[in-house]
Amino acid sequence: MIEKWIDAALGTKKASLVLKNGRFVNVFTGELIGADIAIEGDKIVGYGSYEGQEEIDLKGKIAVPGLIDAHVHIESSQLSPEAFAGLVMPRGTTTVIADPHEITNVCGISGAQYIYKASENTPLEVKVMLPSCVPATAFETSGAVLTGADTEKFIREDFLFGLGEFMNYPGVLAKDPEAIKKLEGARAAGKIIDGHAPSTGGRGLNAYIATGISTDHECIRPEEAEEKISKGMYIHLREGSATRNVAVNCRAVTPYNLRRFLFCTDDRHAADLQENGHLDNALRVAVKAGMHPVQAVIAATLNAADCYHLKGKGAIAPGYDADIAVFDDLKDFRCFMTFKGGKKVAEGGKPLFDASCRALPEEVKNTVHLGVLSPDSFRLKLKGSRANVIRILPDNVVTERAVRTVQSEAGDVVLSGTDLLKLAVVERHRDTGNIGLGLLEGYGLHGGAIALTVAHDSHNVIVLGDRNADMAAAVNELKRIGGGMAIAAGGRIDSLPLDIAGLMSSLPAEEYVTRSQALLSRAYALGIDRRFDAFMSLSFLALLVIPSLKLSDRGLFDVDQFSFCNIDA
Amino acid sequence: MIEKWIDAALGTKKASLVLKNGRFVNVFTGELIGADIAIEGDKIVGYGSYEGQEEIDLKGKIAVPGLIDAHVHIESSQLSPEAFAGLVMPRGTTTVIADPHEITNVCGISGAQYIYKASENTPLEVKVMLPSCVPATAFETSGAVLTGADTEKFIREDFLFGLGEFMNYPGVLAKDPEAIKKLEGARAAGKIIDGHAPSTGGRGLNAYIATGISTDHECIRPEEAEEKISKGMYIHLREGSATRNVAVNCRAVTPYNLRRFLFCTDDRHAADLQENGHLDNALRVAVKAGMHPVQAVIAATLNAADCYHLKGKGAIAPGYDADIAVFDDLKDFRCFMTFKGGKKVAEGGKPLFDASCRALPEEVKNTVHLGVLSPDSFRLKLKGSRANVIRILPDNVVTERAVRTVQSEAGDVVLSGTDLLKLAVVERHRDTGNIGLGLLEGYGLHGGAIALTVAHDSHNVIVLGDRNADMAAAVNELKRIGGGMAIAAGGRIDSLPLDIAGLMSSLPAEEYVTRSQALLSRAYALGIDRRFDAFMSLSFLALLVIPSLKLSDRGLFDVDQFSFCNIDA
Repeated sequence: MIEKWIDAALGTKKASLVLKNGRFVNVFTGELIGADIAIEGDKIVGYGSYEGQEEIDLKGKIAVPGLIDAHVHIESSQLSPEAFAGLVMPRGTTTVIADPHEITNVCGISGAQYIYKASENTPLEVKVMLPSCVPATAFETSGAVLTGADTEKFIREDFLFGLGEFMNYPGVLAKDPEAIKKLEGARAAGKIIDGHAPSTGGRGLNAYIATGISTDHECIRPEEAEEKISKGMYIHLREGSATRNVAVNCRAVTPYNLRRFLFCTDDRHAADLQENGHLDNALRVAVKAGMHPVQAVIAATLNAADCYHLKGKGAIAPGYDADIAVFDDLKDFRCFMTFKGGKKVAEGGKPLFDASCRALPEEVKNTVHLGVLSPDSFRLKLKGSRANVIRILPDNVVTERAVRTVQSEAGDVVLSGTDLLKLAVVERHRDTGNIGLGLLEGYGLHGGAIALTVAHDSHNVIVLGDRNADMAAAVNELKRIGGGMAIAAGGRIDSLPLDIAGLMSSLPAEEYVTRSQALLSRAYALGIDRRFDAFMSLSFLALLVIPSLKLSDRGLFDVDQFSFCNIDA
Repeated sequence: MIEKWIDAALGTKKASLVLKNGRFVNVFTGELIGADIAIEGDKIVGYGSYEGQEEIDLKGKIAVPGLIDAHVHIESSQLSPEAFAGLVMPRGTTTVIADPHEITNVCGISGAQYIYKASENTPLEVKVMLPSCVPATAFETSGAVLTGADTEKFIREDFLFGLGEFMNYPGVLAKDPEAIKKLEGARAAGKIIDGHAPSTGGRGLNAYIATGISTDHECIRPEEAEEKISKGMYIHLREGSATRNVAVNCRAVTPYNLRRFLFCTDDRHAADLQENGHLDNALRVAVKAGMHPVQAVIAATLNAADCYHLKGKGAIAPGYDADIAVFDDLKDFRCFMTFKGGKKVAEGGKPLFDASCRALPEEVKNTVHLGVLSPDSFRLKLKGSRANVIRILPDNVVTERAVRTVQSEAGDVVLSGTDLLKLAVVERHRDTGNIGLGLLEGYGLHGGAIALTVAHDSHNVIVLGDRNADMAAAVNELKRIGGGMAIAAGGRIDSLPLDIAGLMSSLPAEEYVTRSQALLSRAYALGIDRRFDAFMSLSFLALLVIPSLKLSDRGLFDVDQFSFCNIDA
């Protein structure tokens, strides 16, 4: 190939593809350069004045290096990797660093392998991390466990790019032997370790970073980003569906520290991707918040390539991969065309490749293993009339603990006349029969039940309702459809399968968005407060690492004490 | 180790070493921070307020990450790697990227191995490149040949860090199969390829870079640096003994492109290192030329680490190697102390380690293989009275071609009454008996001969004189001492051995400098023009890749035509 690159660069032979009549962002100099871009095969070989065997007219628009999402859970799109690629590549994204944390908690290493292999059906370059926290805590039943020894073994495999966000921050500082073993395994394999250290600083942050953890995407204040960068971390400017930190954190950018900022989306669901976009959205937000557009492009390209040692990525220059996004301008970032490895893969907002989900491997199918439930499974018998209750807050994954007076009748709490609902986490991986029961205040559902198999991070069934029969019916429906989302109310059952591990749909993106929005409407019709995402807000109520009161399949959990707690107050 | 780092970072146990009462340059933020630096073993674990088992008072001085020389030929110091380390570490250098181009042209891969192994006797971290041009041209007799196939084999070895400066720029553009094979070998091994592309631009530069060559240290104008950076190269700001490009090229630095600039010394001889320093000198020059001192420090540390993927180097931050240079200030860069891997290795300009040359391996000793020469070996018989003559220019390695009228007598040219001298290159690796003869104008030597075994890049014997008997005596002296520098004049012979491959001395640095300066004085006493370095200026007259007229052991060479030429004009 080297000879072909030389010929094409010298112009002694026509390059296989030349992009003409455009300008491009030179990430090394910060300049906007008007020049032809010559591509031979999958590599850029030069810019200047060139002729190509094929020539594409960029019509005065602006080319930038293909965007790199430096941290994303593809599962959060609730789409297959193929459909995910079909949504993000037309927005200018060509590479993502994917942490298959969710599916690995359900399917073990097979889940990570699935993400890797399914991504190969698309032109999207997906670097797959090995999730570091499977399960997230010892207080829940996940579908799989990756021990320190497992991690040491798997992290050496070629298909795994690094160790995923190390959320077990307390474990690191407490020198938990399993945590240490995971970190040592990644270090020995010479692989990058992503971090996750919300609101940490000082000596604790020093210790966390000293172990070799090199990135963080959890900053919520510029000062936090500044300290982390000053201690050597790369900081992801995150614009997810629920966590929108770009506008605030990009205020921390200076000419010196710019090179340590990246962009990521972390968690972004299908409807958001379809409607608002992917990194293009993050760039719009950043520029609107005052970040210089060229700086924003550099962060989304060269910096991510530097941080993750993605050789040949992140720039439009000779020898670099011909991964290029073309935007109408650097304000609205409307994507005109996307090129990956020298091939046009998207134009006018549509993928030019087959984005349909291919045949699923057995390991990610039929992941709901539980018996048929009866209404009695959801009877909640209290000793007295005072109960610890989970109070859910809008725009937040943090909950509050409240104590409420409740009435009981025939060995079950009486919900009518209260703002309380029954919340249950039903173990669904190993048919243990575990059901954790609790009370939730402030959600606003009446006369039915809503259930889903997405419940961070162990992804058991979470079900909320005010009628035991509907709760059972909703869970049984999830068993029937092999995982997904369900509503049971008024004798009617509506559902939408998430047939990939109970987390993601094999439907095409557009169809999935239409159907999930229809289901959402039905949920709101039951009175759910519209300040919540009817399904997704539930999915965080089993996340035991976020304060204050949460629910696992093994019972109510006090995150502040980091132990189970009694529902009787 | 991870547990120890955590304990020390948290302060739950005292760090093994704490540097107190200093400030340090935070290369990520550009700030000067006043804080204790905590070190555990060989790693920095944090900054802030710390106590240590050992504490060192920095007395208000300024710590920076250990300096990284991104491209150096250690052989040019004419010292052993041990003595070289003894000179540069007290100047703040902790890591160098060394290209053993000279010794490999004499000894083959054993030369590179020697540099690697001898460096291990010192705390200096030496990353050894595999020289890419052995020999530099096909028109000379070198001590070794590394073919494309050799390169493909050797480059995979762990001790070799990358492929050294690819000087055969025309070979790359002409798709020379041997050049391509070398590049492909380095690419396949995933190793960095250093460049050397003086005064190239446009499509030729595109082609050169497209092959994967990623650095250049040959820029002589800011515009040249700007173009090369805009095309993705890292640019070394070079401050060698003969090539001083920092002051000019640092004008090209901008906030955007800063991250692509490094520092290097390339070739710097012992006396210069001893008197003026190493990268500390380059930093002084840069700051004096107007470069912001913090930017200069970033270029000499973080940027080099980024370019060469030196994980854990280039910053003072948790998890980074405890390689630290402490300077009195950021103007004069007078080095107070140097730390390498958490150990103090230099203080007050002196190394705290044994910098003496250890036992030499056989492969680098006794590298002068030639018979005893007689004065007749240097008879120069011309056909007529017009000769092509090499004109040497002060402050330049480029020569001019001139045609001069010369007298002959008894089958030899007559030099008396002219400004001409006889120049000869005597093959010394394989005893072929090759002697290339030429005439040199403008050096100013009278009544003797001067000879040395350093003659770029094949390092045959080069000898200059006006008396055949002295020329023979000088060369025979080099044979006797196993390589080095010699002067024969007035029946007296003075010499200084370069017992390591005929290129470097095993003497301690100070002794070597004293003795070489004494020899230099003796050379100037023969009338050599002081605008030349009496010995080193000669060493470039056999370098066949620099215009215009040069001399090889196989005859006079016209670099512009790239072919041999007749001495008869």
